[in-house]
Amino acid sequence: MKITLIGSGNVAWHLGKALNQAGHKIVALYSPTAAHREELAAELSPAKAVDSLDLRTTGAELFVIAVPDAAIASVVATVRVPAGSIVVHTSGSQPLAALQGITGARTGVFYPLQTFSKSKPIDFSTIPILLEAEDEHTFQTLQEVAGTISKEVHLVDSRKRKQLHLAAVFACNFTNHLLGISRQLLQQADLPNTLLQPLIQETVAKALQSHPFQVQTGPAVRHDQNVIEEHLKLLQDQPFYQQVYQLLTRSIQAQHPKK
Amino acid sequence: MKITLIGSGNVAWHLGKALNQAGHKIVALYSPTAAHREELAAELSPAKAVDSLDLRTTGAELFVIAVPDAAIASVVATVRVPAGSIVVHTSGSQPLAALQGITGARTGVFYPLQTFSKSKPIDFSTIPILLEAEDEHTFQTLQEVAGTISKEVHLVDSRKRKQLHLAAVFACNFTNHLLGISRQLLQQADLPNTLLQPLIQETVAKALQSHPFQVQTGPAVRHDQNVIEEHLKLLQDQPFYQQVYQLLTRSIQAQHPKK
Repeated sequence: MKITLIGSGNVAWHLGKALNQAGHKIVALYSPTAAHREELAAELSPAKAVDSLDLRTTGAELFVIAVPDAAIASVVATVRVPAGSIVVHTSGSQPLAALQGITGARTGVFYPLQTFSKSKPIDFSTIPILLEAEDEHTFQTLQEVAGTISKEVHLVDSRKRKQLHLAAVFACNFTNHLLGISRQLLQQADLPNTLLQPLIQETVAKALQSHPFQVQTGPAVRHDQNVIEEHLKLLQDQPFYQQVYQLLTRSIQAQHPKK
Repeated sequence: MKITLIGSGNVAWHLGKALNQAGHKIVALYSPTAAHREELAAELSPAKAVDSLDLRTTGAELFVIAVPDAAIASVVATVRVPAGSIVVHTSGSQPLAALQGITGARTGVFYPLQTFSKSKPIDFSTIPILLEAEDEHTFQTLQEVAGTISKEVHLVDSRKRKQLHLAAVFACNFTNHLLGISRQLLQQADLPNTLLQPLIQETVAKALQSHPFQVQTGPAVRHDQNVIEEHLKLLQDQPFYQQVYQLLTRSIQAQHPKK
């Protein structure tokens, strides 16, 4: 498959490389930033770095929009692709309908459900790819492409993808924030941040093995009011963290009422 | 070292086995519940299951209290040990002073910083053991014992241990709760809970490699108000989760103000 990539961020970087390695040909790469498009195009050789969203002459059959969610609308408003080609976005939070304004193309969603950093290599084969398409034929084409880079290809419609994204915000974005708070608390206590690593890893391993609600531990689920109050006192100079502590304690206790 | 274990829960179970395997002799095991003490004593053969907290004749030099935090006070009030022996508790949240009422013994804390389930074998050698003792000689004895089961032995006083425990509540107990919410949201959307596993694992791996605040992703850090409002709408029938979503979003945004 001949592919044009729109975007040069973390998703474009990893998805482009995975598609390239699977034998697809990245014929062109668009980014508004010259340095970014040159750099990624060089990685995806012989991709041509292009500075215009008129992509009708790139020779591609598939156009992959991998830009920040907030930039999708402006790409859709500007991009020109050949009639009959397929355009997909790679966003977990945007509906298929976000691509409605593109003339002459069949549209789809090609969402790799993972968090990417350019500096960290990643095994694409285990990353779920969630697909959606405006018609069955387009879906089948996307399914074939996705199947060349991942063993985990799922059809998930826009409504469900939004619910999935919400679940991911809790499991990943919020979890990361809590790990950040924890790390900051360790720093404040002059304790090494490696100290909690085995506990964090085991907690997550256990939560993935069982239902997390069934393996909940800690002062909240024990309704250990003494410890809870001491912790709140330790947080008295950090009112935001104190509020987070209180609310999550109440949420755990709502799940596990006092016996 | 001859050791008597007080308790038969998850900590007693794993710590007892680790001490046993390291060549220490568990001479007696106390639990108020006959079935529990018989079961664990059999695992720690030839430990004797005892039903009294008068432990003066067990022959042990070290007494390890591994009971729920809320039960420590009643053990302290009742237990009898030989003069000059060492008594430790294994709690992350209780100070050394929680053992003050024990007559004639030197006291310490022997806190294995990990979450334990009886059904899940665990490699003790990488588990940090946090020690504290009322005097240098007792500390050295505990350090020797801890060194036989773990490579990660640290001196952490009661004040710091409390701060560490607070950090662990954020990193583990609260994180587990968020993973539970996420799993529930997936169930409600009729999506397989395995779908988010690679993302969760990568998120945590990344958070442990870098400072989590520096690798924060998601709608909150992007100040993507459209997505945030759609998520809040999806949570309208779950007001607790909606509150958690709002507060953690604000906490992330306080960390990462809009540019």
